[in-house]
Amino acid sequence: MNKIRKLAEELEAEVEKGRNPQIVMMAKGLNNVNFNEKERLLTLGDKKMARSFLNIAHARKFMQTLMIANLCRRLVEVEKHASIREVYYQLKHTIDKTKENTFEGQEESDPVIEDLERTLDVFREQMNLTADRRGYLYGNVKITDAGDTINCAKLGRGGYGIPSTVEELGFEEVKADFALVIETAAMYERLVEEQFAKKNNAVLIATQGQAARGVRRLIHRLHNEAKLPIIVFCDGDPYGYYIYSVIKMGSINLAYLSSELGTPDCKFIGMTMTDIEKYGLEKVTEKLKEMDIKRLKEEMEYPWFQNRHWQNELKKMLKGGVRIEQQALANKSLEFVAKKYLPEKISREEFLP
Amino acid sequence: MNKIRKLAEELEAEVEKGRNPQIVMMAKGLNNVNFNEKERLLTLGDKKMARSFLNIAHARKFMQTLMIANLCRRLVEVEKHASIREVYYQLKHTIDKTKENTFEGQEESDPVIEDLERTLDVFREQMNLTADRRGYLYGNVKITDAGDTINCAKLGRGGYGIPSTVEELGFEEVKADFALVIETAAMYERLVEEQFAKKNNAVLIATQGQAARGVRRLIHRLHNEAKLPIIVFCDGDPYGYYIYSVIKMGSINLAYLSSELGTPDCKFIGMTMTDIEKYGLEKVTEKLKEMDIKRLKEEMEYPWFQNRHWQNELKKMLKGGVRIEQQALANKSLEFVAKKYLPEKISREEFLP
Repeated sequence: MNKIRKLAEELEAEVEKGRNPQIVMMAKGLNNVNFNEKERLLTLGDKKMARSFLNIAHARKFMQTLMIANLCRRLVEVEKHASIREVYYQLKHTIDKTKENTFEGQEESDPVIEDLERTLDVFREQMNLTADRRGYLYGNVKITDAGDTINCAKLGRGGYGIPSTVEELGFEEVKADFALVIETAAMYERLVEEQFAKKNNAVLIATQGQAARGVRRLIHRLHNEAKLPIIVFCDGDPYGYYIYSVIKMGSINLAYLSSELGTPDCKFIGMTMTDIEKYGLEKVTEKLKEMDIKRLKEEMEYPWFQNRHWQNELKKMLKGGVRIEQQALANKSLEFVAKKYLPEKISREEFLP
Repeated sequence: MNKIRKLAEELEAEVEKGRNPQIVMMAKGLNNVNFNEKERLLTLGDKKMARSFLNIAHARKFMQTLMIANLCRRLVEVEKHASIREVYYQLKHTIDKTKENTFEGQEESDPVIEDLERTLDVFREQMNLTADRRGYLYGNVKITDAGDTINCAKLGRGGYGIPSTVEELGFEEVKADFALVIETAAMYERLVEEQFAKKNNAVLIATQGQAARGVRRLIHRLHNEAKLPIIVFCDGDPYGYYIYSVIKMGSINLAYLSSELGTPDCKFIGMTMTDIEKYGLEKVTEKLKEMDIKRLKEEMEYPWFQNRHWQNELKKMLKGGVRIEQQALANKSLEFVAKKYLPEKISREEFLP
């Protein structure tokens, strides 16, 4: 709230001095994103950009930025949340005496929300903005939310549905040796049913594909506040490795949030190309598609994959031309993943960095 | 289990008599689906089809049907669940001394699972098969699952994540006047935040787009076992009306399950084309796309939309050429939907049948 106020006051002061008010924010895009070796995260460089009112190319976005800032101030003031879709609808209107709409679509308002994050150095969740939720958590974690205490081991087989904003959540108790982050909901349900969490003193988290911001933030908080080691379990394909990469290092698009969302200490347990030979899974692999190969080649250049373990895996995939899903382990037996594959790899610490 | 055993015994008897064993099931597809006026559901006709072993065109599917039946028997026996993806991986292998695979992809095993449902007249959830989960529930419902009792009003703002299989769930207590089924998760979160459930003594259910089988089954059970009236709240577009239609009448593909999944008594609250005029929402509509218009014209022919209320709405949409999202109500104010739109329409019973 103070940051929004300060921005507004500064702009007002400029106007009163008869100057052209401008909003300054960190520049975005590839040419301002670096891999920060020390923090082991994708972070923004120090390039800035300014958006000024008296500039035809900027005026519309200038107005939009302030409209969204104002809406966020009101949300925080009354302690309400709005989805980024609602933001668009709330602010859309035709400007008086013109035919100009404030916003033409959500594709116009979403980037401005990200701009505001880079202007104020806060994230949208702190400004009470939400997005579609995804992801589940199961295990010995007691979460407090809106006056309720939720025991995530006592919610039946379904577990806890992770909200899109996890800022307000508190950890009353976290009793586990590690958290296993799982790409597919079906594998998560398999492990819940096999009582993997109880038998291995683990917390299970399903991302359901690419991890949503709320899920990444929750993983980050569980690691940093509750000191849980994080082990990531994805499909053995370029998309699965990308999911891991984003959980670990952050993403180019949201590089300014990496220190809040990334968990550089996390480790990758599988699926790996080595698993295919070791566990005799050759018959349940699938051929790489062209898009997979393109992404794979990009990943071979990622700074954090510049170590012999990952290079070895990525080269094997390129050479073999195959991918493998985590659910392919069911070919051995339904229990195999819970009774052999995971416990064996965890006890031997067979992780990729 | 008995039904699977009986099928196997019958086939075995045929083989022992030196006859060609065959599996008989209800025929599927449009030409065996009817709108049952009495039950007000899409149901299968009485056409049957047979799959026989000594028929080159049937032999492969015959084998697959029995493989899946056998796996389901084992699952039920050991009280385990498997995802339909795991089913594929569990059963995939190369047949001894041939180059033939039992299954080439999940697109081969999924339809066979549906065949088995139509053969045995049970549904896959009863055979312990699961699929990807979707959907949330919030409100005064106490659900029992796997020994836990879950109070769905005490799970923070997130609510209860509906599992893909709801067969094993029990309702320990349901305290509400009605259930509101909501298309988008964001609108669900809005209503949770506005305390709509408490203030209106309602249960909130988010489908997150097309309702998954588990969600449809839960709605059906809440209506039939807990006697909750069901009110459906979707976007005002042909896709939203289709979502309503499937919740109410069932779908063509799963017509054999309509009596387990459908809820013909449910009612539609919005969004309607009439809402646009009545609440002055003209500026937050969007143009219909070609695909919308195609679907809209199909819907005008649906038997259950053959009443003046629906025809009036559908014609208005065709004429106006616009659609409206439920979140467009945020244009009035964030609270509008919870404080005015829904309570007003509910108290006046302004529903479509």
